[in-house]
Amino acid sequence: MAKLTPRNNNNNRPCCDVLHLLPSSLIALLLLWTLWSTRTHIVSDPNNTPISNRAHGPPDQTFYDDPDLSYSIEKPLRNWDEKRKEWLRLHPSLAAGSKNRILLVTGSQPSPCKNRIGDHLLLRCFKNKVDYSRIHGYDIFYNNLYLHPKMDSYWAKLPIIRAAMMAHPDAEWIWWMDADAVFTDMEFKIPLDRYKDHNFVVHGWPNMVYEDKDNKSWTGLNVGSYLIRNCQWSMDLMQAWAKMGPNTPNYEKWGRILKSTFKDKPFPLPDDQSSFIYMLSTDRARWEKKTYLEGSRVTESITQITMGRGVGRRWKGL
Amino acid sequence: MAKLTPRNNNNNRPCCDVLHLLPSSLIALLLLWTLWSTRTHIVSDPNNTPISNRAHGPPDQTFYDDPDLSYSIEKPLRNWDEKRKEWLRLHPSLAAGSKNRILLVTGSQPSPCKNRIGDHLLLRCFKNKVDYSRIHGYDIFYNNLYLHPKMDSYWAKLPIIRAAMMAHPDAEWIWWMDADAVFTDMEFKIPLDRYKDHNFVVHGWPNMVYEDKDNKSWTGLNVGSYLIRNCQWSMDLMQAWAKMGPNTPNYEKWGRILKSTFKDKPFPLPDDQSSFIYMLSTDRARWEKKTYLEGSRVTESITQITMGRGVGRRWKGL
Repeated sequence: MAKLTPRNNNNNRPCCDVLHLLPSSLIALLLLWTLWSTRTHIVSDPNNTPISNRAHGPPDQTFYDDPDLSYSIEKPLRNWDEKRKEWLRLHPSLAAGSKNRILLVTGSQPSPCKNRIGDHLLLRCFKNKVDYSRIHGYDIFYNNLYLHPKMDSYWAKLPIIRAAMMAHPDAEWIWWMDADAVFTDMEFKIPLDRYKDHNFVVHGWPNMVYEDKDNKSWTGLNVGSYLIRNCQWSMDLMQAWAKMGPNTPNYEKWGRILKSTFKDKPFPLPDDQSSFIYMLSTDRARWEKKTYLEGSRVTESITQITMGRGVGRRWKGL
Repeated sequence: MAKLTPRNNNNNRPCCDVLHLLPSSLIALLLLWTLWSTRTHIVSDPNNTPISNRAHGPPDQTFYDDPDLSYSIEKPLRNWDEKRKEWLRLHPSLAAGSKNRILLVTGSQPSPCKNRIGDHLLLRCFKNKVDYSRIHGYDIFYNNLYLHPKMDSYWAKLPIIRAAMMAHPDAEWIWWMDADAVFTDMEFKIPLDRYKDHNFVVHGWPNMVYEDKDNKSWTGLNVGSYLIRNCQWSMDLMQAWAKMGPNTPNYEKWGRILKSTFKDKPFPLPDDQSSFIYMLSTDRARWEKKTYLEGSRVTESITQITMGRGVGRRWKGL
């Protein structure tokens, strides 16, 4: 299945322990293609035959045809529920089953990991998620681009989740998982029925998030893995959330506020987890109702192992 | 979605540039689980709901219930066509569409790559294949275990392909791709109709494989990417192929034979590519009819970039 170099070229081709050099421009092109390609959009049926393809889809215009459409996290997207609903109406084969469709999204930085075995473990962690997705019939997308030049590290999630929602109106939920989170129970089934009245599901404890006013912890919930519904509410949430991020002029000011609120927060600048707890607790009326803090410990299906400052810790959870 | 450590633990959790330490036993357990789990087998429909699960499948016995069943490449599997056919009969929801179902299989060595950026590129190459598989509705499996203790490097493919065939009787084809091969045309559709009368499809040139007796090249075809049908013929092919591998006492002898046959072969010991060309050309009556040497250069959809001895080369192909 591959055209060879002209014969008699003595290519040295051990299968695995090879050096791999890919032109970075080629890689960037491929990565961008997979994310931004909205022209073709193929979803499989059990027969593994494409059942829909936007390139040959209905001639009606959709939100994709709006010349002002922007994937940027900095440009609010309005009327998303209506736009998505109309798109689904025009794509009935994708609308079927969309209510329970999950797109698992994960990713890591564009550059090689500084730790010697970091990328090897990222590879294994990605394999773990691909295995889980295959078993449960989920699509999975791995991002390794910063879609906003200032939003790196934990803040890189929001732009990619926003883009994934827009690129996948067929998916009801985006399931974000940090690169270093792994499934330890491959048969774990996410109880979507339990979350039917909510738009954001994250492991955490209400008392730690909404109470403990004078002694709040930044570990009241864990945004290493969360479900977020593909809807206008979520777009608004991300818009508000990103206002504490490095893309805003108030980034350092927010860092001081968060550090004084969460005494155990180890970073001087805002992180997405502290910021989210702050949002929930200070604008409870706006965000609490649709946010499900999952406290169940029955199914310990995900393990997140993070090491910093030379100390390894394990987070077990649903 | 994750249970946290008790509050006030100052976990240092940057999203990306972290050190990741996973207990190797846990990783091995997870990897083995995903490969060997034949108890549960879930395939998705467009609604992303599992449509079949062996654990709750029909009560009839299948080949999986045979206590003598072995996944080992060293133990011949007989009557596979009948066993697979019977299994499909008992699983009609998986039988539907199985004629065109492809499982893409790839993988790399269990240990970290010796090259500083090797695992980073493996991660990107895996992402490329996952993106392609998502777009085209294929399942994908990444292997990073040696299923036979002696069959490493390029010889690691055969045991995993054999195991994948047995674990996926629902798939008509296994598409092997080396870890360092990437799709450059994400819209490329494999022309299965063209291969309907064949069991093995690989890029190559008949004159280089079957002729050039006194000046044969080991680059007459490229086993960096190939399609192999899930059938008894393929089981027999792999059985014969593996007889030139490091699991046999004749490994070094085969190395001398291959080195004298292929003057441009850079390795003293047998590699899978030279061995396959040797098989085809010396037992043409047995293998040629069902082997399709794909010479088309119309669609250059896969690029394999391999670097050895400090020299990078690019293989472009179908």
